[in-house]
Amino acid sequence: MTTPVTLTGEYFIAGERRGCGEVFHAYDPSAGASIKDIGFFTSGDADIDDACAAADAAAVAYADLPLETRAAFLDAIAAHIEALGDALIDRAVRETGLPAARITGERGRTCGQLRLFASEVRDGQWLKLRIDHADPARTPPKPDLRLRMVPLGPVAVFGASNFPLAFSTAGGDTASALAAGCPVVVKGHPAHPGTSELVAGAIVRAAADTGVPAGVFSLLSGTDNAIGAALVADPRIQAVGFTGSRSGGEALMKIAAARPRPIPVYAEMSAINPVILLPAALAARGKALAAGFVGSLTQGSGQFCTNPGLVLAIESAALEAFLAEAGQIVENQPPQTMLTAGIHAAFEKGSAALAATAEVQTIARGVHPTGPHEGRAALFSVSAADWIAHAELQHEVFGAASVVVRCADRDELVTVVAALEGQLTATLQMDEADFDDARAVLPVLERRVGRILANGWPTGVEVGHAINHGGPYPATSDGRSTSVGTLAIDRFVRPVTYQDLPPALLPQLLREGAQAGMVSRIDGEWTF
Amino acid sequence: MTTPVTLTGEYFIAGERRGCGEVFHAYDPSAGASIKDIGFFTSGDADIDDACAAADAAAVAYADLPLETRAAFLDAIAAHIEALGDALIDRAVRETGLPAARITGERGRTCGQLRLFASEVRDGQWLKLRIDHADPARTPPKPDLRLRMVPLGPVAVFGASNFPLAFSTAGGDTASALAAGCPVVVKGHPAHPGTSELVAGAIVRAAADTGVPAGVFSLLSGTDNAIGAALVADPRIQAVGFTGSRSGGEALMKIAAARPRPIPVYAEMSAINPVILLPAALAARGKALAAGFVGSLTQGSGQFCTNPGLVLAIESAALEAFLAEAGQIVENQPPQTMLTAGIHAAFEKGSAALAATAEVQTIARGVHPTGPHEGRAALFSVSAADWIAHAELQHEVFGAASVVVRCADRDELVTVVAALEGQLTATLQMDEADFDDARAVLPVLERRVGRILANGWPTGVEVGHAINHGGPYPATSDGRSTSVGTLAIDRFVRPVTYQDLPPALLPQLLREGAQAGMVSRIDGEWTF
Repeated sequence: MTTPVTLTGEYFIAGERRGCGEVFHAYDPSAGASIKDIGFFTSGDADIDDACAAADAAAVAYADLPLETRAAFLDAIAAHIEALGDALIDRAVRETGLPAARITGERGRTCGQLRLFASEVRDGQWLKLRIDHADPARTPPKPDLRLRMVPLGPVAVFGASNFPLAFSTAGGDTASALAAGCPVVVKGHPAHPGTSELVAGAIVRAAADTGVPAGVFSLLSGTDNAIGAALVADPRIQAVGFTGSRSGGEALMKIAAARPRPIPVYAEMSAINPVILLPAALAARGKALAAGFVGSLTQGSGQFCTNPGLVLAIESAALEAFLAEAGQIVENQPPQTMLTAGIHAAFEKGSAALAATAEVQTIARGVHPTGPHEGRAALFSVSAADWIAHAELQHEVFGAASVVVRCADRDELVTVVAALEGQLTATLQMDEADFDDARAVLPVLERRVGRILANGWPTGVEVGHAINHGGPYPATSDGRSTSVGTLAIDRFVRPVTYQDLPPALLPQLLREGAQAGMVSRIDGEWTF
Repeated sequence: MTTPVTLTGEYFIAGERRGCGEVFHAYDPSAGASIKDIGFFTSGDADIDDACAAADAAAVAYADLPLETRAAFLDAIAAHIEALGDALIDRAVRETGLPAARITGERGRTCGQLRLFASEVRDGQWLKLRIDHADPARTPPKPDLRLRMVPLGPVAVFGASNFPLAFSTAGGDTASALAAGCPVVVKGHPAHPGTSELVAGAIVRAAADTGVPAGVFSLLSGTDNAIGAALVADPRIQAVGFTGSRSGGEALMKIAAARPRPIPVYAEMSAINPVILLPAALAARGKALAAGFVGSLTQGSGQFCTNPGLVLAIESAALEAFLAEAGQIVENQPPQTMLTAGIHAAFEKGSAALAATAEVQTIARGVHPTGPHEGRAALFSVSAADWIAHAELQHEVFGAASVVVRCADRDELVTVVAALEGQLTATLQMDEADFDDARAVLPVLERRVGRILANGWPTGVEVGHAINHGGPYPATSDGRSTSVGTLAIDRFVRPVTYQDLPPALLPQLLREGAQAGMVSRIDGEWTF
């Protein structure tokens, strides 16, 4: 097929390109300059209204398509994204300052994720098909009850600056919402509008190819937060997916809660992902831990939701050696371009605030930047008592900055863990001699985090069935679900029970015997 | 066993009776007088704090108990409630004005529900055990990921006035939260404090019998809404279960959303449960439909969440005959005592407002009351155009009042359905000749309701696996879940993933081969 890769600067409303009037430009953070080759049009109130109306109008038809069509749509999106070839990679690199290898990997992850959700749609367990047969002889007579999950309706998805593909236009939120049967209206992140336009075109072509109603997808564009605010306030939107800052997520939560009819917001917001270095591991392999830690800290200029911004350890000579080693590696870290001017400025401000805190020692900073918007890795340390006394030390500094908290003993370590806010991840570095310490920490940790790692680093997030990318507030707005992996589909569905409905009117999959091959529950018994 | 059934007027904090100072009295609505035999103590701020602290302190130990212990606890609660014998029935009848047969049935439902959740705890599918095995040969190496659901932590449960057993101290919210592994702090409904005390005593004895930490359950008591507000605001509370009025539910939602760390609120609030009489059914069996409808409308003085407060039908001679027949039955309905003076007053006010609306015709009122707080059934009708034009006609009048909406044709019927707010249920009365009409209505209806019934009445809610008692806003605050049936356990859990955790530190059920007998997902494949 011939794939159009020339940008027009337009956004998409129900499959149609649109745009006129005011434009904004993408920005190349590596060059420190706007990308003037194309202006991107700003979506207006009428566009938001049209996108929501189209999504609402398409909701029933899309929900009623055979699951195979929905799965084919997701597969086709992946194929159309791949067909964009290097044009997509080049544009995303230019708009984010991220290396081509990283963007190429992220494209693979994005397409793999779409295909995983396609296979999940076919799997059907998420439909939670349940049948309780009637018993007319009972007093009172027992009715016939049949339950399935149905889509919530149109979902608003916000593109994330730090993952222009995997958490943006056709990222995890879009893939899981479409898999659940929900139309999606994306508000593209203004830091990568060209990337968004290219991917949106792929989605629109996939819909046309597979006979999916065009209203199932729209892309809104612009730099003003008011666009997203209006989208979340629209009565036709039934749920929100967001990955970004805590302030951004909390603003959307407030709008959603203040609606005449409140809706769920799935915001992945803020985490410092503690790494706990237990004593035996620290003594046995402190040098390797230092290298592994700094590698995780500085990957992608530290711009991961799961970046290890906090290290907890018990005072010891081994800890001093770790700090010296990690400090030396940090000092040799070359600066890396950050995603946007704003993110870079916030990182510098946050790092400076840490450095200026009297109780905080600066262990090391990376090599001084020479280019625009380059982030300079930063490592700090503080005593456990001071960390606990200064709640602001727990705030995320988005980028390659981390604070090592020195604990006097295991009890103080547990006290620090108990003081943690909700986190996406926590990591234990431990050897067998540390297992008793680990047993003291784990129950406290488990109540505060979504994923617990042993002897690894948190910055990789595997896409699969057993992954949770979520966690208690403020890691996310809603710790009851994940935004990565197949369980994410559960966020966008709700149950409906059909009582004594004549077979001719029952949804196909709830008719007698139609559940074969799907995990379902018949009269309380699980069957395939 | 000897079961203490003498009331002391005390509440319970972590298994201990407490109470001093200010008292309030229960009220016998049938007698129209306070029940002076015992004063009930009011819980204070220190009690709320102690209850939350005890729940928080017990959370880890309770979550870590073997599932069998948790199940035995739920079974023991049911046994201890049954052991209260007639003392419980008598007290609940006195405090609610409901007949003994109804309360006896409700006790059976409550104990059955506790035992169903005990068996659900043992079933274990709700743990969503998932394992994705490692693949060290992959580039990058694939980690070992294991996921399970863990309890959210302490849950605040509000007793409901209209179900003193099934939706109160040991009702569905308490049973499902305890089943999920969450400690519970109940705010008892002040309309039935003696019933609450008796049931709370049963829970406390069950905990002691089965070795469950006493902090897992507390009962707070009092008439001031500030008690519940303080409970929901407490940082240790992680979720809220509520059944009651829309204003009450929305007040709790606001408090929960305004916390530094917002929490989920499961409020079952407001529904008018439309019944759609399709033409062929109405023509063929209008008389039987009228009798069935009025029976459902007036059951329990209309004080059910699923009471049919709205009837939709297309203008016809059969509809006129239905209205005449239903009107006549309503006129012969004896008045029935309502739950509280406040509920009765609100019912009379709501009925009077309907009667006073110029566009609304009063079809019939029931027999004039002679006793205190007796509700008088009411049937009204209105044109579809007027119903749509007056949004307030859609507000719930809690009690035996219903509005019949006359639609000109099928299109207008669909228009009315599309204008509906979220509902717990919708009922279609139909014969085969009505199936085409039903097909036009169903997709629109499905987006607005939690349960769709054919040829039945909504006021029975079966407790089972395939039931949904929930629905889009404002039927509930969160249409993604049910408050009745085994799926309710999902409301109180969240996922945690363990990555590369040494087997010795893994939760028992996530160790290799330990999932036998439970529905689980290993490397994407479903197994038992």
